[in-house]
Amino acid sequence: MFMRIDHVGIACHDLEEKIAFFERTFDLTVVARETNEEQGVKEAMLHIADGEGGGSYIQLLEPLGPDTPVGKFLAKRGEGVHHVAFGVPDVAEAMREIGGRGVRVLDAEPRHGTLGSSIAFLHPKDMGGVLTELVQAPDTGDAAPGH
Amino acid sequence: MFMRIDHVGIACHDLEEKIAFFERTFDLTVVARETNEEQGVKEAMLHIADGEGGGSYIQLLEPLGPDTPVGKFLAKRGEGVHHVAFGVPDVAEAMREIGGRGVRVLDAEPRHGTLGSSIAFLHPKDMGGVLTELVQAPDTGDAAPGH
Repeated sequence: MFMRIDHVGIACHDLEEKIAFFERTFDLTVVARETNEEQGVKEAMLHIADGEGGGSYIQLLEPLGPDTPVGKFLAKRGEGVHHVAFGVPDVAEAMREIGGRGVRVLDAEPRHGTLGSSIAFLHPKDMGGVLTELVQAPDTGDAAPGH
Repeated sequence: MFMRIDHVGIACHDLEEKIAFFERTFDLTVVARETNEEQGVKEAMLHIADGEGGGSYIQLLEPLGPDTPVGKFLAKRGEGVHHVAFGVPDVAEAMREIGGRGVRVLDAEPRHGTLGSSIAFLHPKDMGGVLTELVQAPDTGDAAPGH
C-alpha cells in the first residue's frame, strides 16, 4: 500500500530562513514553492530522492496566520515535525481500505496537495500521535503497485 | 548528501501493539526487531521501500524505562514522531561536512544503529526542532553518491 516515504512536513516560523538553512547545510534544492490558502500555509519542497511512483522530499511549512492548523501547532509545540506523508498508488482506494480497517480518514474526498498530488489525511489519534498523509503523485493513477 | 529518507522513528508505549496495528492496517512487514540497551529502547523496523544506498522504513520505538530518552519524550509529548533519519553514503564524512557548517553533531564518532547501520544524531535545536539522524547502511561505505 505504501510505496515510499513521500515527505516529512516540518512546521517553521520563517520559511525563507529555513529554506536557506537546508540548502546551505545539506546541499538540497527547492523544487516547488506554493501558498495553499485552503490549508493556511506557505510551503516549499526540498528534493531528497526519486522513488517508486514519486519523489521523496522535506516539506517546510510556514503558517499564513496564528489561527491556521500549522499556526496552532507552532504555538503549542514549537517548530518540528508536523506530519509524515506516504506515497500510495491510488489515494481514493487507499482511503477506502484504511478507513475500512478502523482508521479515521479526515477527508471525505481526495484533495489537492503539493506538486499536483492528490492527498488525504488520517487522524493522528488513530495513528499513534502521527498526523499521517496519503499522497498520490500526479499521473500515477494508472500505475499498478508493482510499477 | 542525503540519498533517501531512511526512516521516521515513532515513539510508542507498546511496541507489540503498534507493530500489529501497522501490519494489519497498512500491510507492512517487520524486517528487524532489536533491543538497544545503549539507547534504552526496544525497536522494530517496518519496511516501506528500497532506495539508493539502503531502504526506507517506519521505526517503532518503545522505551526500556521512564528515564531513557524515549521514555522522557513520551512523558513530555506523548506518542508521536521522535526523530527523522536520512541516508548518507558515508556517515563520518557527512558528520564532518555538516559539523563544519555550524550544526552540532551529538556523536563524536559514528555509532551502531539498527540493521547494522552506522549512525549519528544532529542537535534538534539546530535542526528546526527535528531530532535528525544520519544513517549509513551496512556495506555502502565504498558507494559513491551516484551509486
